[in-house]
Amino acid sequence: MYYGGIEAGGTKFVCAVSDEHQQIIARTKFATTTPNETIIKINTFFSEYSVVRMAVGAFGPIGINPDSQDYGYVKETPKKGWQHFNFLGELKKIFHIPIVWTTDVNVATYGEYKMGAATNKSSALYLTVGTGIGGGLIYKNNVFQNWNHPEMGHIMVSPMHKDKYTGNCPYHKSCLEGMASGPALEARANQKALTIPKDDPLWNLEAFYLAQAAMTYTLLYAPEIIIFGGGVSNQEQLYPLIRKSFSKQLNHYVDTPKLNKYLVHAKLGDDAGITGALLLAQNK
Amino acid sequence: MYYGGIEAGGTKFVCAVSDEHQQIIARTKFATTTPNETIIKINTFFSEYSVVRMAVGAFGPIGINPDSQDYGYVKETPKKGWQHFNFLGELKKIFHIPIVWTTDVNVATYGEYKMGAATNKSSALYLTVGTGIGGGLIYKNNVFQNWNHPEMGHIMVSPMHKDKYTGNCPYHKSCLEGMASGPALEARANQKALTIPKDDPLWNLEAFYLAQAAMTYTLLYAPEIIIFGGGVSNQEQLYPLIRKSFSKQLNHYVDTPKLNKYLVHAKLGDDAGITGALLLAQNK
Repeated sequence: MYYGGIEAGGTKFVCAVSDEHQQIIARTKFATTTPNETIIKINTFFSEYSVVRMAVGAFGPIGINPDSQDYGYVKETPKKGWQHFNFLGELKKIFHIPIVWTTDVNVATYGEYKMGAATNKSSALYLTVGTGIGGGLIYKNNVFQNWNHPEMGHIMVSPMHKDKYTGNCPYHKSCLEGMASGPALEARANQKALTIPKDDPLWNLEAFYLAQAAMTYTLLYAPEIIIFGGGVSNQEQLYPLIRKSFSKQLNHYVDTPKLNKYLVHAKLGDDAGITGALLLAQNK
Repeated sequence: MYYGGIEAGGTKFVCAVSDEHQQIIARTKFATTTPNETIIKINTFFSEYSVVRMAVGAFGPIGINPDSQDYGYVKETPKKGWQHFNFLGELKKIFHIPIVWTTDVNVATYGEYKMGAATNKSSALYLTVGTGIGGGLIYKNNVFQNWNHPEMGHIMVSPMHKDKYTGNCPYHKSCLEGMASGPALEARANQKALTIPKDDPLWNLEAFYLAQAAMTYTLLYAPEIIIFGGGVSNQEQLYPLIRKSFSKQLNHYVDTPKLNKYLVHAKLGDDAGITGALLLAQNK
């Protein structure tokens, strides 16, 4: 029995097929170009396998409310050609099988929950911090979503004392993404994140915002674990700083799990998304 | 068949018994004094009815994680005598029936969801704004909680431009509760909230913070409706201001339900809590 997974990112697509033992038997990767070209590549790749179920984690925002006319669509996006594209509809024309449809960050969250940093937990939060900031939540062993998927990167934050940067989010200026995404960090540093010294005070600032976000998620969701993924999360010096700032900001208002097990780095790296997509396809 | 409900507030207790048609057949109210006196009053009231199930919504913070040693306890609270009181344990010594145990705000949320402002919805958020700020969420027809109940009042907020007030939360100073609870409003105004003129700019400020909180809840939970309860919520002039500020701050980043149906005043008033407790007792 074969299952299909698609991790549809704004930059690249990953498609894979797994068997019932969760082994990946085929896999491909290609740059995200136009919707038409993409659909053709997806079709070609999967045509060699008789897949019984499929899951797609798509870059967004996407329509995830089955009662809404935009269900299955990519919505407003700066990605050329993808605005208002009926992605799920086009896939359904090709594949006459059940297709799980959710966000790219939700499939990564599911991957980390099932096979990464959150195995054996019934709830988990995954936050990707890179060009943008986005997050997903597993609640009682399922992907959490109501009429919309969580938009964890766009919550407003209380600025750090003396932080003069005013934020770069085109919608909210100084929301979490506007203050703490990779580009925000680089705009402050006036250099690439990878070249910022590990002991630069900018990492304290970055940790402050990520810790405040983790505090908000803790107060509102109380997940068993908060996992950081994405490019910025690879800066290992951040974790002690995030934990320290989290503890200070939350000020012991609630008793959390131990912070070195609670605020952690992702385990699956770039494989979280496709892993989660395949597992969602198999489990649904 | 009779069901019991207890709304255990920091100021007053309400106990009631309902029949299977959701009719309240008996009800009492008394001031919150010591745990011992309270338990005796609860016992006396319910002794006349053979109740088959009960639900308690307690002021907190309370332990709601069944795997934790503090499950059923009132935790750190300024309320004298109630710190570390095994409330559920004491109730179980008297009543040998199933007891649903949750927060006061969760029972109020359930009441509004079942019989108030959110009937016919599968998700709803209820925020009480009074001496403190707290909130509950219904998700897929159930009370949302992980290892902790939501603590919606203590999320950090981005301060309004030129707001000089630095907040009064003993834990976080300028969190939502610190900036927008009744006492914060009164500290700014230097008078009781009820005497602040309806057109005072302070209501704009209050609306700004409540709108920002509603934006965070929208981005993280996407509930079908956000219901405001508690003393401050009775200021009807707030609603147009909250909706306007919400729209401005969210800046159309996600498509919400229509704001006059989305950001609304509670319907059950002071009865939300006991109504929800009785319904939870009946439905669980």
